[in-house]
Amino acid sequence: MKKLVLSVVKIGGNVIEDSGKLTSLLEAFSKLDSPKILVHGGGRKATELGEQMGIKAKLVNGRRITDAASLDVALMVYAGLINKKIVAGLQARDCNAIGLSGADGNAIHAHKRPVGAVDFGYVGDVEEINKITLSSLLNAGLVPVFCALTHDGQGQMLNTNADTIASEIALGMSKEYETILYYCFEKPGVLRDRNDEGSVIRQINAQTYQELLADNSIADGMLPKMENCFHALKHGVGRVCIGDLRMLHSEYMDYTTLAL
Amino acid sequence: MKKLVLSVVKIGGNVIEDSGKLTSLLEAFSKLDSPKILVHGGGRKATELGEQMGIKAKLVNGRRITDAASLDVALMVYAGLINKKIVAGLQARDCNAIGLSGADGNAIHAHKRPVGAVDFGYVGDVEEINKITLSSLLNAGLVPVFCALTHDGQGQMLNTNADTIASEIALGMSKEYETILYYCFEKPGVLRDRNDEGSVIRQINAQTYQELLADNSIADGMLPKMENCFHALKHGVGRVCIGDLRMLHSEYMDYTTLAL
Repeated sequence: MKKLVLSVVKIGGNVIEDSGKLTSLLEAFSKLDSPKILVHGGGRKATELGEQMGIKAKLVNGRRITDAASLDVALMVYAGLINKKIVAGLQARDCNAIGLSGADGNAIHAHKRPVGAVDFGYVGDVEEINKITLSSLLNAGLVPVFCALTHDGQGQMLNTNADTIASEIALGMSKEYETILYYCFEKPGVLRDRNDEGSVIRQINAQTYQELLADNSIADGMLPKMENCFHALKHGVGRVCIGDLRMLHSEYMDYTTLAL
Repeated sequence: MKKLVLSVVKIGGNVIEDSGKLTSLLEAFSKLDSPKILVHGGGRKATELGEQMGIKAKLVNGRRITDAASLDVALMVYAGLINKKIVAGLQARDCNAIGLSGADGNAIHAHKRPVGAVDFGYVGDVEEINKITLSSLLNAGLVPVFCALTHDGQGQMLNTNADTIASEIALGMSKEYETILYYCFEKPGVLRDRNDEGSVIRQINAQTYQELLADNSIADGMLPKMENCFHALKHGVGRVCIGDLRMLHSEYMDYTTLAL
């Protein structure tokens, strides 16, 4: 039997700070075929709120540490403010969204990142996606909207990378569904020339990826993202798409698609 | 066919500020028979955060107004901080909690309170509980945990009284379930002598309620709560219980039960 297509869309958290971008997201995502899942990142608002509350961002070796106070800020901004604004906006467009953290329905189980050279604090590495919870919600016609928070099953919430949550969800659901992972960001796709937004590379496979690496076409910031994408593809995700919000429209084609 | 019993438990939001009380709640609620639903209020934390952010509480005729900034604070504190801490704590006790606002799964539809002598701002009066969403979640073995926020279906979140949300949920689900509504507060129940915590009135029915009113035994603050309870009983709720957290333990009996 042919598997149903499940779209997993990851967006940055900054989208809610720009009402035009938020509207574009809500319009495009609500029109995307179901079943689908949205994952949103944090964004600048958490830093802003932390500053207002007198909480200083803690950095060790240039890496941000999530202490108890910063975790509270993340709970407030990601699971509260951003998540509910997106959910209410989708509901207004007849998309039956349900906002979730990884603790809700035990949807994403993680463990605190082991302390190595750096103790990142309350940062979680994903252990397992709860397919039973996700399937129940999807089968009920609901559209899960995840913020970038998980839990350890022992009462501790954990700050978790949104890109990773999106790929783990797509991976975890890929036995039951044909999964497509969409990474939405500011750029229209992976660019051959980083200064030319018209130079989108439409198709990348494992072989052309090696060629792009060899001729240094892939910018530093894009490297971990691409590694993450190929990891997902190798483990069951059908397709990974990289581009801006326009790629959620069925008629738009000028973005990057990765496949093995 | 005998209907399943559904317990709807309302607690104040301040419970998360006292780790002893929070533990008591989590222990007691997680042991309560399913199906069950928790509704939590706001609490002092929102006022505190508002002050840290330089947002002044707006009062008109002594009534608090929810402007856009205060609504953001409510989203952060109620739907984010408090809701997720309770959900993670229940998950640690094998209670498959799922945190919700009224926007999630379109669970609680409300409208902005009409402007009369006072414009309360983004305050919602409940229109309808979504029985389909709630039944789907309960049938999947999930335990909904509601914060006191609803939405208007047009993208606007609304601050909503937690007592009302609890009674509307119990009312809305009373065709499908035998519903019991638990109002947990600081006192052990309705007291015959407000200065004597040992004077809990165990049973109140419509007739004895009139007698209590006649001899002024019911304190001012308790009056609207009681009216709300009898409204619920008249419209399908099986039983309303008023007391402190101890009443969630099956062996404890010294609290107030209201029935017609």
